[in-house]
Amino acid sequence: MGPGPSDVSPRVLEAMARPTIGHLDPAFQTLMDEIKDLLRYAFKTENKLTFPVSAPGSAGMETCFVNLIEKGDKVIVCVNGVFGTRMVENVVRCGGEAVIIEDEWGTPVSVEKVKDALVKNPDAKILAFVAAETSTGVASDVKKLCELAREHDCLTIVDAVTSLGGSELDVDGWGIDAIYSGSQKCLSCPPGISPVSFNERAIAKIKNRETPVQSWFMDLNLVMGYWDGAGGRSYHHTAPVNAMYALHESLLILKEEGLENSWKRHRDMSAKLRAGFEEMGIKYLVDPAYALPQLNTIIIPDHITDEAAIRTKLLNDHNLEIGAGLGALAGKVWRVGLMGHSACEENVSKCLAAFKAVMN
Amino acid sequence: MGPGPSDVSPRVLEAMARPTIGHLDPAFQTLMDEIKDLLRYAFKTENKLTFPVSAPGSAGMETCFVNLIEKGDKVIVCVNGVFGTRMVENVVRCGGEAVIIEDEWGTPVSVEKVKDALVKNPDAKILAFVAAETSTGVASDVKKLCELAREHDCLTIVDAVTSLGGSELDVDGWGIDAIYSGSQKCLSCPPGISPVSFNERAIAKIKNRETPVQSWFMDLNLVMGYWDGAGGRSYHHTAPVNAMYALHESLLILKEEGLENSWKRHRDMSAKLRAGFEEMGIKYLVDPAYALPQLNTIIIPDHITDEAAIRTKLLNDHNLEIGAGLGALAGKVWRVGLMGHSACEENVSKCLAAFKAVMN
Repeated sequence: MGPGPSDVSPRVLEAMARPTIGHLDPAFQTLMDEIKDLLRYAFKTENKLTFPVSAPGSAGMETCFVNLIEKGDKVIVCVNGVFGTRMVENVVRCGGEAVIIEDEWGTPVSVEKVKDALVKNPDAKILAFVAAETSTGVASDVKKLCELAREHDCLTIVDAVTSLGGSELDVDGWGIDAIYSGSQKCLSCPPGISPVSFNERAIAKIKNRETPVQSWFMDLNLVMGYWDGAGGRSYHHTAPVNAMYALHESLLILKEEGLENSWKRHRDMSAKLRAGFEEMGIKYLVDPAYALPQLNTIIIPDHITDEAAIRTKLLNDHNLEIGAGLGALAGKVWRVGLMGHSACEENVSKCLAAFKAVMN
Repeated sequence: MGPGPSDVSPRVLEAMARPTIGHLDPAFQTLMDEIKDLLRYAFKTENKLTFPVSAPGSAGMETCFVNLIEKGDKVIVCVNGVFGTRMVENVVRCGGEAVIIEDEWGTPVSVEKVKDALVKNPDAKILAFVAAETSTGVASDVKKLCELAREHDCLTIVDAVTSLGGSELDVDGWGIDAIYSGSQKCLSCPPGISPVSFNERAIAKIKNRETPVQSWFMDLNLVMGYWDGAGGRSYHHTAPVNAMYALHESLLILKEEGLENSWKRHRDMSAKLRAGFEEMGIKYLVDPAYALPQLNTIIIPDHITDEAAIRTKLLNDHNLEIGAGLGALAGKVWRVGLMGHSACEENVSKCLAAFKAVMN
């Protein structure tokens, strides 16, 4: 019950252990097509260019930035946690100019500040922000931010690593241009894969680049040739075949439950967890109005002098992993995940009981 | 029996299906340390910076180039197959200047041409070449090429994707500065992971860069903080935990057999396969003096008009995957892998029997 990887269901683990076949085997290509369709369902998109990057979420992030930014492009980046900071790093390394909009960690991206930045920077090409900050447990108003970006003719890059499958996300309905996620959060798949999706506006920008993408591995002009069925697949890299079996199975499970049902389950479990923690006198960092159900950030009570010892006790005595605070919140908060397969009544009860035992 | 992924042993698949734990869990960190030690054994190196990149071999390749090249650096790249060409792509995208040394596909890198290029380009910083060309089945003289590079004060980047575990490789003994491999060839692990190793000369170059590495995901200055045990591990990206279980198991299997025994098994099986093919009148592309045992490239006989149909027949009727020719060799050769777990008597017999059946 940390901030990810979440617990993986036995069904997904079994799928992962199926015999490895060739990455160009027709049977694997059928699986690739199914994965793309299932990802479109999970992202709520018709985007043709929807596929899993063969590497962890950080590489999915970089895939978005490295393809959409050209040297000198101005990018407005919203920073309200660790992953916004990482976005800035990506912009700079792609040769872009980052205009940083900061909000306090534990609060959402300020729509007003973004509006202001868009007005003051009419030459900005991209607006980048995190939908669900894994370092704080905060949801931002993705729909509103995307509307603003479009009004100012900016493309959007959205970090949905912790969102996908766990809380509301509507790529087409909200007009998101480029999005990346991770396999190891609310999909409850082992870590290592990063689902991404790009709409036609984003693809047009990539196809009309004046300079080549600086990464060969992440160059979507090349990757598309492998993941895109049109005209036969060309070899790019060797896909992580077994990781794709697992992703496929985890997406099937999501579809069987139904996307909206999964979102509701995350909300329900989070409400139970919050009630239990509050009963114990433990306070939340994040206002319920914009708190993520899948990532519950609680404030470490004042009387705890060695927070790491508590986490070690939870792990060793109660078989329970929770997350430490990151960056500015290190030592101040704990992060309790309720992600995918892990978001169930049994875990909520076990977690509360374990906390009661170690906090006394 | 294609050019990889090779068949994965049930033991490795079972390891992969173990419950996912946190990437910062102390138990996982112990596993990481063991993996580093086992990789040092497989690479024959004492290099501290030896670890698996959390992405496929192409990303391992890019990790080497992106960290070692700075804008304007001259890099001598030897091209005798597909993967040499990909190295050139990497050099250019890193802002380097590629001096290309070409050799005919199916022959090794010419030591004389390299010597000549090193003399003519005293400002070259790096020599890059493929130890075992997966597209042709050719082994080059790594030791000699590394000696030459060092005489001319060049660092070496060596592609050992197909070498590791399958044929002689001695990172320290041969003085290789930076090397990358893949999990899915002679280690018989599912694809998706790229073992790499860097010596002190390479690390010095990385630490003394004047400009940041253009990739955040692949920046070794950051990755080292996660994989290096010194002073506690810092979070960089979420490691593909289950893929690491599999890699660990595959390396244990290699160590149990013994590295030299594994090389010998590959040689023995390849000799049997060659004898069988030659008995059928099938010719090899590559001279036995520099043919790789783990990748056997045979010339498609003249009377075969539809080579793809033969491969489909092998796959559908005989459950046997072999590789097509790549690039300049497409339609001219087939590639038969004898890699890791797949390099056994049973497979050699089955393969020869299947070819006899479909070629008649």
